[in-house]
Amino acid sequence: MSKIISSIALLQAVFDEHAGKDGDPKTLTKKEVADLLKNDNFPIEPSNQAEADQFFNMLDGDGDGVVTFREFGTFVLALSEI
Amino acid sequence: MSKIISSIALLQAVFDEHAGKDGDPKTLTKKEVADLLKNDNFPIEPSNQAEADQFFNMLDGDGDGVVTFREFGTFVLALSEI
Repeated sequence: MSKIISSIALLQAVFDEHAGKDGDPKTLTKKEVADLLKNDNFPIEPSNQAEADQFFNMLDGDGDGVVTFREFGTFVLALSEI
Repeated sequence: MSKIISSIALLQAVFDEHAGKDGDPKTLTKKEVADLLKNDNFPIEPSNQAEADQFFNMLDGDGDGVVTFREFGTFVLALSEI
């Protein structure tokens, strides 16, 4: 199988696992983002609400209060270049 | 290990494997893109030079003649939403 397809499928799986919990299964709420980061053992994990809000706002590119897969992927890509 | 990190590391590995072949190891040339698609068994593979040029131009977001990892990742993310 294509490694490109595998890598995006893996990212989509992480997103879908959490996006479906409440509300719109196509977007992540602030709580779903917090759960995702914790469950994924992602190396950046907010330690308080202010940091969680800040982190969410960086993810939520268009500021509409939810995070789409495109916003999530774009943010993760940007992080990979730090 | 974080699935998010794994997915980006996999995408970076595919990119780096081909970007390093000639010229700047941080960017893909048109030839390197063609090799990458072939080697990766990516489901979209140009069948002639015109299609290869068109595909490359879609990848090369800023039109500078080479493809960075950010451009590559952004394009792959966009494809995942088709």
